[in-house]
This record gives sequence, C-alpha cells and structure tokens, in this order.
Amino acid sequence: MTSKCRLTYFTLKGLGEPIRYMLSYRNIKFEDVRLDMETWKATVKHTAPFGKAPVLEIDGKVLTQSKAICRYMAREAGIAGKDTWEDLQIDMMIDTIEDVRTAAADYKFERDEKKKAEKKDPLYNETIPFYFKKFETIVSASKGHLANKKLTWADIYFVAISEHMCFLIDQDILEPYPNLKALKDTIHAIPGIKKYVEQRPADILVEF
Amino acid sequence: MTSKCRLTYFTLKGLGEPIRYMLSYRNIKFEDVRLDMETWKATVKHTAPFGKAPVLEIDGKVLTQSKAICRYMAREAGIAGKDTWEDLQIDMMIDTIEDVRTAAADYKFERDEKKKAEKKDPLYNETIPFYFKKFETIVSASKGHLANKKLTWADIYFVAISEHMCFLIDQDILEPYPNLKALKDTIHAIPGIKKYVEQRPADILVEF
Repeated sequence: MTSKCRLTYFTLKGLGEPIRYMLSYRNIKFEDVRLDMETWKATVKHTAPFGKAPVLEIDGKVLTQSKAICRYMAREAGIAGKDTWEDLQIDMMIDTIEDVRTAAADYKFERDEKKKAEKKDPLYNETIPFYFKKFETIVSASKGHLANKKLTWADIYFVAISEHMCFLIDQDILEPYPNLKALKDTIHAIPGIKKYVEQRPADILVEF
Repeated sequence: MTSKCRLTYFTLKGLGEPIRYMLSYRNIKFEDVRLDMETWKATVKHTAPFGKAPVLEIDGKVLTQSKAICRYMAREAGIAGKDTWEDLQIDMMIDTIEDVRTAAADYKFERDEKKKAEKKDPLYNETIPFYFKKFETIVSASKGHLANKKLTWADIYFVAISEHMCFLIDQDILEPYPNLKALKDTIHAIPGIKKYVEQRPADILVEF
C-alpha cells in the first residue's frame, strides 16, 4: 500500500475522513480528490464498484466502503484487535458509531422542512446524548479508548466521524464530553494525523 | 460458544436472520427469542448495550450489531478470508448488502403514504435492480460465490438478508437472478441451516 494511492470523495469530511485519517496514520501519501456532486457523477461515479463514494484506488485496485477499507488498513497497521474477540469489540463500536451518524445524516439531508423540524428535537436531545454519553462512559472506563483499553482503529474512526457529525448537526458534538475530547486530542496528536489535520481543507456542502 | 446462547430479536427475519444462520451453520443450539416491539421495550431493550436489537447473549456476555457478530462467528468457523485482503473483499460486499437493505427498509417503514409512494418506483426499478444485477454478475463470475470464489460468510449474510428483503418489498427478490437463486440453494443445503430453515416461524410484522 505504499505506491500510487488516490482517494475520491466529496468536498466534505464525511465517510472519506476515516480513510484519510487511516492513510495519514500510516503515513501513506495519497491524492485527496474532493469533488462536488456534479463532477463526481460526470467523472468517477460510473467507475465505483457500486456507484458510491468514497472510492480508494491503490495500484489500480478499486476499493469501496469506508468501514471495510479502514478495517483492512487497521489490521495491516496493527491497530485492530489481537484476536477475533477483540476485533468483535471494535466492530460492535464501529457499527454503533454508524448508527448514530446515520441518524444525524438523516436529519441533515432531510429535504422536507417540516419533517426536518420534527426530527431535530429527538436527534439533538435524545439520540445523540444517548449514544455520546455511553461513548463517554466507555472511554472513561477503558483507559481513554473505545475498545480493548488500547488504541485501535475504533478510536480513529470515531474521531473522524464525530468531526463530520459536527457538520451534520452544526454543533461541537464533543463539547459536553471531556473524555471524548481527550480522545480526540490523542488522535490529533498522532504525527501523521496531526500533519493531515493541519492542512485539510474546510468542508463545502454538497447537494446530495 | 457452545454453551448457553440466546438471541433476542423481533418476530422477523430482519437483522436477526444472519445471526440465526451463522449459529445454525455452526450447529450451535440457541434460544431463538422473538418479541413484538412492546415486549422488547418492556423487557430487553434496556439491557442491550445501545438499546438495539438483535442482542446475542453468550455465557452472560451481551453482544450487539448483526454484522460484527456474524464476522466474529465466521472467523471462528473458518469461513472468513484467508488473509486481510480476502476479508476486505467480504467486508466490501457486506456493507454493500447493507446499503441496499437500508434503502428497502427506508421504503417499507416510511409512515407518510405519499412519500412511500414516491420512494417505490426508484427502489423497485432502479436501486434494487442496480445492486442485484451486480450481485448476479459477481456470483456468476466467482464460482457461485460473492467473494473470493469460495463459500464465505458474505454468501450466508446475503441469503439471509435477501430473504428479509422479500418481506421488505413484498416480492421474491431473487426471482430474476438464476445465479443468486443457486447461491440461495447452496446455503439452504448446508445441514445446520437446512434444519433451521425447515422449522423457522413465519415473519410477523412489528410496528417500529
């Protein structure tokens, strides 16, 4: 994975960000292609295995699915579990992060203004606090990490997605949670990720 | 995983079915608890790690997330990949299956009748054929399997979810696809799964 590497995604953190973090964690140079929806549709969508972004090209191999790609890179990098049971703990966390992200995206991209207004209160006052309080408790009880009491790709995935969620809900989602903020600091202090974060472009809203 | 094992889910195939299949594949006896929404909320929901079904209890350990649980069981059973690259091929397929299932569920459980009607045509005539034609092509080119040209948990997961999708769209989703139907027959011929399928109860619609 040290040769030609190109990530194509939208002009957003979104589901591209965990991959950008994992590549940066591994100090792999990559072309960080960020497209608006129109350009994506006109140029890359038809080459994606199932028409979906992000797409990661490595030496001519075309990969898709953010979680699958991150899991693969994590195992290669030694930040997955030490056995299948530890991997299970990570995977349960990853899919749970996905559940709460999906709820926030469902709100953000709701086109019906009345429905969007209806979705706001349960999302902001029930769903997000429910999940993030649990994440906070887990991290507090697990030596500052989300799984297996050590750094795993669940931590990196979580921080990348939580930053995307700030965009989805237009709020600093980690603000009420000191242990989650500390986890973010831990991840942002990793040299490769630090370097990436310092130079990444700001999000530009795309029309889905 | 050979001792006390209890799966709790709704009175549906749904996200419980891939776990029921994996347990059956491994010939693990399990208590197949099927609850209506009211009973779930009153009795089990609060014990689930993030309040979500399915929940799998093994020797007092409480597991959640269908894909994570199935991946764990598959690796234990030797029907994951032989290395991280093969696992990546499986995982990309699993999350793609999840994408199309989610689209079908989004239609099925839409409460606004007008919106539901609007979602029907794109789902039935674009999204599902798009994905299932690709699945058909992959299986046709890969010795009858979805990944790595051999039986993996992607096949089992796919068959279980495609059966659930028949319920979601009220149609035999595999009918136009001979290779996918053959894959279903292959999975249904596995002794443990055959035995489970022969005695499983019919779906009862729950109110979400």
